[in-house]
Amino acid sequence: MAKEVDLNCDGGESFGIYKLGNDEAMMTQVTSISIGCGFHGGDPHVMRKTVALAKQNGVAVGAHPGFPDPIGFGRRKLEVTPEEAKDYILYQVGALKGFCEAYDVPLQHVKPHGQLYNMAWTDEKLAKGILEAIRTIKPEPIFLALYNTMPYQLAESMGIRVAGEFYADLDYAPDGTTFIKRTHGEVDINATVKKVVKMVVEGKVTASDGKDIEVRGKSICFHGDNPKGPEIVKAVKEALQKSGVKISSLSQQFGS
Amino acid sequence: MAKEVDLNCDGGESFGIYKLGNDEAMMTQVTSISIGCGFHGGDPHVMRKTVALAKQNGVAVGAHPGFPDPIGFGRRKLEVTPEEAKDYILYQVGALKGFCEAYDVPLQHVKPHGQLYNMAWTDEKLAKGILEAIRTIKPEPIFLALYNTMPYQLAESMGIRVAGEFYADLDYAPDGTTFIKRTHGEVDINATVKKVVKMVVEGKVTASDGKDIEVRGKSICFHGDNPKGPEIVKAVKEALQKSGVKISSLSQQFGS
Amino acid sequence: MAKEVDLNCDGGESFGIYKLGNDEAMMTQVTSISIGCGFHGGDPHVMRKTVALAKQNGVAVGAHPGFPDPIGFGRRKLEVTPEEAKDYILYQVGALKGFCEAYDVPLQHVKPHGQLYNMAWTDEKLAKGILEAIRTIKPEPIFLALYNTMPYQLAESMGIRVAGEFYADLDYAPDGTTFIKRTHGEVDINATVKKVVKMVVEGKVTASDGKDIEVRGKSICFHGDNPKGPEIVKAVKEALQKSGVKISSLSQQFGS
Amino acid sequence: MAKEVDLNCDGGESFGIYKLGNDEAMMTQVTSISIGCGFHGGDPHVMRKTVALAKQNGVAVGAHPGFPDPIGFGRRKLEVTPEEAKDYILYQVGALKGFCEAYDVPLQHVKPHGQLYNMAWTDEKLAKGILEAIRTIKPEPIFLALYNTMPYQLAESMGIRVAGEFYADLDYAPDGTTFIKRTHGEVDINATVKKVVKMVVEGKVTASDGKDIEVRGKSICFHGDNPKGPEIVKAVKEALQKSGVKISSLSQQFGS
Repeated sequence: MAKEVDLNCDGGESFGIYKLGNDEAMMTQVTSISIGCGFHGGDPHVMRKTVALAKQNGVAVGAHPGFPDPIGFGRRKLEVTPEEAKDYILYQVGALKGFCEAYDVPLQHVKPHGQLYNMAWTDEKLAKGILEAIRTIKPEPIFLALYNTMPYQLAESMGIRVAGEFYADLDYAPDGTTFIKRTHGEVDINATVKKVVKMVVEGKVTASDGKDIEVRGKSICFHGDNPKGPEIVKAVKEALQKSGVKISSLSQQFGS
Repeated sequence: MAKEVDLNCDGGESFGIYKLGNDEAMMTQVTSISIGCGFHGGDPHVMRKTVALAKQNGVAVGAHPGFPDPIGFGRRKLEVTPEEAKDYILYQVGALKGFCEAYDVPLQHVKPHGQLYNMAWTDEKLAKGILEAIRTIKPEPIFLALYNTMPYQLAESMGIRVAGEFYADLDYAPDGTTFIKRTHGEVDINATVKKVVKMVVEGKVTASDGKDIEVRGKSICFHGDNPKGPEIVKAVKEALQKSGVKISSLSQQFGS
Repeated sequence: MAKEVDLNCDGGESFGIYKLGNDEAMMTQVTSISIGCGFHGGDPHVMRKTVALAKQNGVAVGAHPGFPDPIGFGRRKLEVTPEEAKDYILYQVGALKGFCEAYDVPLQHVKPHGQLYNMAWTDEKLAKGILEAIRTIKPEPIFLALYNTMPYQLAESMGIRVAGEFYADLDYAPDGTTFIKRTHGEVDINATVKKVVKMVVEGKVTASDGKDIEVRGKSICFHGDNPKGPEIVKAVKEALQKSGVKISSLSQQFGS
Repeated sequence: MAKEVDLNCDGGESFGIYKLGNDEAMMTQVTSISIGCGFHGGDPHVMRKTVALAKQNGVAVGAHPGFPDPIGFGRRKLEVTPEEAKDYILYQVGALKGFCEAYDVPLQHVKPHGQLYNMAWTDEKLAKGILEAIRTIKPEPIFLALYNTMPYQLAESMGIRVAGEFYADLDYAPDGTTFIKRTHGEVDINATVKKVVKMVVEGKVTASDGKDIEVRGKSICFHGDNPKGPEIVKAVKEALQKSGVKISSLSQQFGS
């Protein structure tokens, strides 16, 4: 089982005067952050500040590109062609790399956001468009994706470095996919800690039907818009370390 | 006087279903193109197609970042801080570089658009913000700017490679700045050819007060939204070549 | 069969510096115009000018609200709830009415644009959201819709005044729906004239399978982004008048 | 001195997933609300919910139109023509009226937001454009403006009903204008109560130079983005009522 794991969260999704999440506190705990790139959330000023904050905290930077649907926060299905999806990713990841260059920080990974992520689970052409975008970016970033979903497998078959992702605070369906929630309710920290340690150490999670399914991964996803977010990451991290699991970013795990 | 000159135009400023300019025809004539990056004009799909078209025509690619004012096409003054201007340039240039990487085309230059260009002529802090953005981009692109304006001089003093720009189809004020027109009227091709050859070969242009002023430059700016645009570039190019002037991109001139 | 018919086209879909269609020429021919409201096309300045132009030409004004997807021109499916669709219509129609009030012009009708129109053909909840929006607007405008589609029938059952629409330049499927084209190719004017006269006078159109289907309507839809648009409307209008059909706006037909 | 006063705040400035201010709590205290219309803040869904909330709380509804600058929240100067400003107001106020119609709530007033408000204090042509927009809206709403600023006086001279506005939590310059703050710091509730009672009952406020200046008004402006906002309004309201001042909306004061 995994002896090493990355702790990731989304961030940089504030916009203009609007604040979302708690990047400052989350960054003191996670090892990787997926930063909004201005389409579903984030703006150039937020991106600059978030990259600077990541550097300051030694957190590895990834891109979190989404659909151009600010009102819907990229969480509504939009009928795009694979080529349009590729363009949206190249544009947004490129924009983020502008700030990475400014702070001399490498771009570690790409994790598509919202429906640009979810629609790809069942749409192979879309998944391919996304992966072609990742292949195009130089140097090629790691693809962060839910373990064993179709895009995960497709990335493996294309030789793209892919990091399986565990979800700390979402429920799993029997097929291994997660239920995306629009709002994150009260989280039971102890239950979350136990669930995550089991996922990482035993490679198993109890799905919504009560049966255990196999999960593999290199990173645990936490949500920063939960007020208890930083506390949860901290508790999980300490429990993992006690169980002998090393906490390290994806770059460190891939040796890049 | 200049024995070598680049021919540039703006392009990639179409948006979605909306078509602007005549990139296909202009690209057969110019040696450099400044591509819209999605804020004042352009979108990710247009950017991809425009970079592809530039590559196909052997035209050097530059970025043409503007203000986030699509209704005003970036031609209205917007009160931004130097840091905000820097962020807008890093974001947009980065986004364009995403497509440059996809087509393995280097980013030759940056030319700010509309009021992000004009406001900087008289606002040293803003000019500095723009130049700091250019300095941040790796590898550092050439700055394309009107000869002897304050940002031009500031770039020189900062050791940034700056290419002076002649305007083929705009009138010059006695101080060497040009009058930006919102629409481009009927152009007298013969007069334009004579004017440009004089600028390039003699280094002089007749200003609006009838007196000659000195101009220097490495590039001539043409406007693609003029229906006669391609014809004008062609006529100017032929006349320059007859006068012994070599037509070469900025990269070639700077030996980069 | 119909002895009276309205001639409509879309308009006011230019945006900022970008020009779309040929409103000036189309307005000299049509009796009703459906004006973009700023989400898929149009902006506040374009809306003002288009309403002014309609008034000047005695053309009745309708709203043409679409999805908030400017890059896709509202022609991509977006997963909205019926309530979101209703909100988009109330917002956009209200905005247009701001300019109608300024020019003392009544709002005659509402015709949803692009996928906000097409998705409703097969989604009854969405259709209901759209019609509830129309019901909410005061005074209640006419709903302009393709004859016998589900939203057309639903509007009738709700007691909303609905005007069936013929398409002059689109092909009909055997079920009476039309094939939306993203670009409009070469149009055979004579064939169009014959087709429209047959639709209006005989109430029949030949579908793509070669069989005649029944069509009813109060308005013929023309496309202004076709360069021959104004010529086509003129030819159709003259042929209809020769066949004894009266050309009158929807307001005149409904006696409102 | 004023024996009657309205209590207003801005609201409906949330956007998509982003929450701003505390409309629910503020609406239990104020008598009028100025609702964002989607350009600087707010979106169609937020507008619908805010109008519904206002109706439920018996709070009078006004429009709060701003510049199309979401990143800058309408607080950056934008070089618009008076006609462009007029168009932005007609569009946004019309859009809000779409929701007012849906909930059968009259539009009481218009208060321009951010720099669309502030730029007009010193730009008579812009002020005129704004007031011509207000004059165009039917029925004509009340103009809510800082007492004795140029647009206030211009409105009076044009016969537009204008309600002078006191600021509870901003400091006054000796010329009667206020200092707009981008963020609202800690507020001393007792001092605010004393200041407001003095403004309303005595018609005087101590300016930043320590001298009292004359102020008149029909409404007190509170800021909902201050966490103590609802508490402040409540304290001010009780103190005013104890001083014999009646709390009533602008519509009630103007008898409309």
